[in-house]
Amino acid sequence: MDQIITPEIKELVRRYKEIWSLNYALSLLGWDMETYMPPNSSKERGEVRGNLRTQVQSIYTHPEFISLVENAKPQNDVERGIIRVLKRQIKYYTKLPREFIEEEERTTTKAFQVWREAKEKSDFQMFQPMLEDIVDLERRKADYLGYEDHPYDALLDIYEEGLTVKRCDEMFSVAPQISDLFKRAKERYPDRHPLEDEPYDMVFLKRLIESVLTVLGFDFSRGRIDVSPHPFTIEMGLYDIRITVRYEGKDFRRALMAAVHEFGHATYEMNISEDLWATPVQRGVSMGVHESQSRFWENVVGRSRYFVERFHDQMIMALPFLRDYDLDDIYRYLTLVRPELIRVEADEVQYVLHIYLRYKLEKDLIEGNLKVSELPQVWNDFMDRLIGVRPSKDSLGVLQDIHWAHASIGYFPTYAIGSMFAAQLYEKLNMRNLIENKDYSRIMTILKERIHKWGSVYPPDELMKRASGEYLNPNYFLSYLRDKYLS
Amino acid sequence: MDQIITPEIKELVRRYKEIWSLNYALSLLGWDMETYMPPNSSKERGEVRGNLRTQVQSIYTHPEFISLVENAKPQNDVERGIIRVLKRQIKYYTKLPREFIEEEERTTTKAFQVWREAKEKSDFQMFQPMLEDIVDLERRKADYLGYEDHPYDALLDIYEEGLTVKRCDEMFSVAPQISDLFKRAKERYPDRHPLEDEPYDMVFLKRLIESVLTVLGFDFSRGRIDVSPHPFTIEMGLYDIRITVRYEGKDFRRALMAAVHEFGHATYEMNISEDLWATPVQRGVSMGVHESQSRFWENVVGRSRYFVERFHDQMIMALPFLRDYDLDDIYRYLTLVRPELIRVEADEVQYVLHIYLRYKLEKDLIEGNLKVSELPQVWNDFMDRLIGVRPSKDSLGVLQDIHWAHASIGYFPTYAIGSMFAAQLYEKLNMRNLIENKDYSRIMTILKERIHKWGSVYPPDELMKRASGEYLNPNYFLSYLRDKYLS
Repeated sequence: MDQIITPEIKELVRRYKEIWSLNYALSLLGWDMETYMPPNSSKERGEVRGNLRTQVQSIYTHPEFISLVENAKPQNDVERGIIRVLKRQIKYYTKLPREFIEEEERTTTKAFQVWREAKEKSDFQMFQPMLEDIVDLERRKADYLGYEDHPYDALLDIYEEGLTVKRCDEMFSVAPQISDLFKRAKERYPDRHPLEDEPYDMVFLKRLIESVLTVLGFDFSRGRIDVSPHPFTIEMGLYDIRITVRYEGKDFRRALMAAVHEFGHATYEMNISEDLWATPVQRGVSMGVHESQSRFWENVVGRSRYFVERFHDQMIMALPFLRDYDLDDIYRYLTLVRPELIRVEADEVQYVLHIYLRYKLEKDLIEGNLKVSELPQVWNDFMDRLIGVRPSKDSLGVLQDIHWAHASIGYFPTYAIGSMFAAQLYEKLNMRNLIENKDYSRIMTILKERIHKWGSVYPPDELMKRASGEYLNPNYFLSYLRDKYLS
Repeated sequence: MDQIITPEIKELVRRYKEIWSLNYALSLLGWDMETYMPPNSSKERGEVRGNLRTQVQSIYTHPEFISLVENAKPQNDVERGIIRVLKRQIKYYTKLPREFIEEEERTTTKAFQVWREAKEKSDFQMFQPMLEDIVDLERRKADYLGYEDHPYDALLDIYEEGLTVKRCDEMFSVAPQISDLFKRAKERYPDRHPLEDEPYDMVFLKRLIESVLTVLGFDFSRGRIDVSPHPFTIEMGLYDIRITVRYEGKDFRRALMAAVHEFGHATYEMNISEDLWATPVQRGVSMGVHESQSRFWENVVGRSRYFVERFHDQMIMALPFLRDYDLDDIYRYLTLVRPELIRVEADEVQYVLHIYLRYKLEKDLIEGNLKVSELPQVWNDFMDRLIGVRPSKDSLGVLQDIHWAHASIGYFPTYAIGSMFAAQLYEKLNMRNLIENKDYSRIMTILKERIHKWGSVYPPDELMKRASGEYLNPNYFLSYLRDKYLS
């Protein structure tokens, strides 16, 4: 890894440590909110987080700091990465007027409450005016941030540096083939698997998960597993990275596969080079690349026959009901293909179709080619065509996700990048043999060398090319699915 | 409660919110270190805490902030409290030169390691040169901070605002009587109580503690109980105050009484007026007053026959071995008097004698009337005279406490203030009846109105006088002990 040699960049990194320390604290405050915080602390905790975020912002926007960034002459890849990342941050803090950010916060705070109620009542019309405001806000946001070809590009770039409509259209060009593949695959599976209804003892499933993650390579000296309503990974620094799991009491694959998924996120952060510690590039580079790591471990490694073989002893020990099922039963349970209305319930075959739908609608909304009022009808028709199911009510359709209420328009496509790049790594890095041989340590070493250790030194598309020899190519995903589900 | 009306003080409180938010985060970072932090995160966590502390310091020492404090004209008690507290903080950050603070940090970091090893090997000579450096440092610190009568006054004031050698000498004037009382009381007790050896089921003791604290009035919507190597209380803000307990597997009074003790600290912080939220006076005013609250609940309420009566049902349920003991057995177990070499093992009768010894030695060290090399001999003689036991080795004597290695000279006397003021409240606020009637809610209301809600608005001695009608008077403690242990 390059060393930081330019004095101005050393000075920037020194100043950045204040931001890094505040972000470390903000992460712990966030983790605690989801795990152990007493129930009546939310409001006060919100004030603290808001205040610390303002302190972060005022360091980024200090004229001396900006001038150091703008005048820096980086000499190597690490230095270029640092300046690139800082410029991106400064852009968001300086291009969006304070009044706009406040308006967005007010609107999303209200929209979240309205969305929750509208979803409960399955009443889209209740949410419609809020969503109209949000679409309008996000179109203005795109104008503030600037773009070359398409206003949606400005929003996509927030979540995935450099992502554009053009690249999304290429990525989703395989959607019709995936839809066909899905419709053929689902014929091979039952409507429901008996293991979905087996209740488990939480204490033992927790032990199983700890044991599986230990074998896969989780470093418990720098991480932990806790319980929260929604599983997530959070990185404080390089030496404290935590994941959470939710135990629902039955259908054990949900908790187990979620843990393996979060393991993928966590090890990405754990494997970043110590040379980048406390610098602006000590962090996974993008949502899409992050999601490729979690999906690689969850879907490619975890939902495989070899994974079931490897962990069968521990599974039987933790979940005695598995004595009534053979390896093949468990594998089919982990890879069950069945049309789902809800994105987060979707198997890996149809998942990208759920994303494609959202991408298409977001793009049309931002372009102005689709009215918010038309969304439910278009959503339902699209689901019918792509996946072969039609929501009976909007809570099972257009109202299901929180993202739009949060004004996170442009976020969804990163999930598809994740699925697709995971398959590309599988193919291009010859992972098949290693997975068959359960050589998790070698797999991790390769991912670390090719991707993890670089942090945010390279932009995501460049990192993907360096790691796999090719920019993102959706055909690897297609062949991965075909081999796994149709052979 | 007075409102903040002076514009300059409003502005100060607005700026102080950055400090308050950073301190909130620092508290959570500290809590997490003792409870859930992964083992290899210590070094990184230390860097984060150091960086955030520097950010706090640079707000306090900003010339505009200092000038606002110095020129403020407070109009009422709350405003006067705010300015008083801020001036104290600024004093510590400005009177001690940066090089001195760094030297103190270096010395104590090393001293802590040396002390730990010296204690393990019971080798005072190993620790002696470090302690000599520390005494020297603390004498210089007193000079930097300034004092009127005695250099030790400057150090006492760090931990207890306004505390002096003169006041300590008054307080400890009852030491000979306490020593006599202790020697008579110990004759009434066996050397060991069989309940000390009863092992318990941790899961049930945890439930008992939660149940007892619920009855006493702990607000679980703004607090929690976790496990840590040493019990402590930590306040994030007004809506998140946590305690910890340690479960050793036998001798249940240790965990139970520690929980009641921490409950006393926690409710002090929880009961501070919301009008003081996020201001410099939203915090218990001093170590001594804090300790009076924890000791009031632990010793006066908890170690009483009425407490045993009130919680006997729950105790039997959680700890079935108690079916073989009657109420009186349990009460005697909670109040067992027996000479102890170790301060933290001491009963409430002899505890103040352990403190008196440390106070006397610290004072003589700072005065220069005692050499560090003479400490072990003087310590052992003193123990023999006061408590009637003599340490067989220095790990059971002069090496037992961490405080001196931390350069916390001046801290110990606050424990004695706690014991003594708890007894004064018992007498002067007519608590006897309420304790007999188990009216914990009324007790809490009185403590809240008289002490808690005021936060740091009044200095500790003034608060004690306002709360009890009298400045600290050690005779109440003497009569409390006499009634409880000799009648």
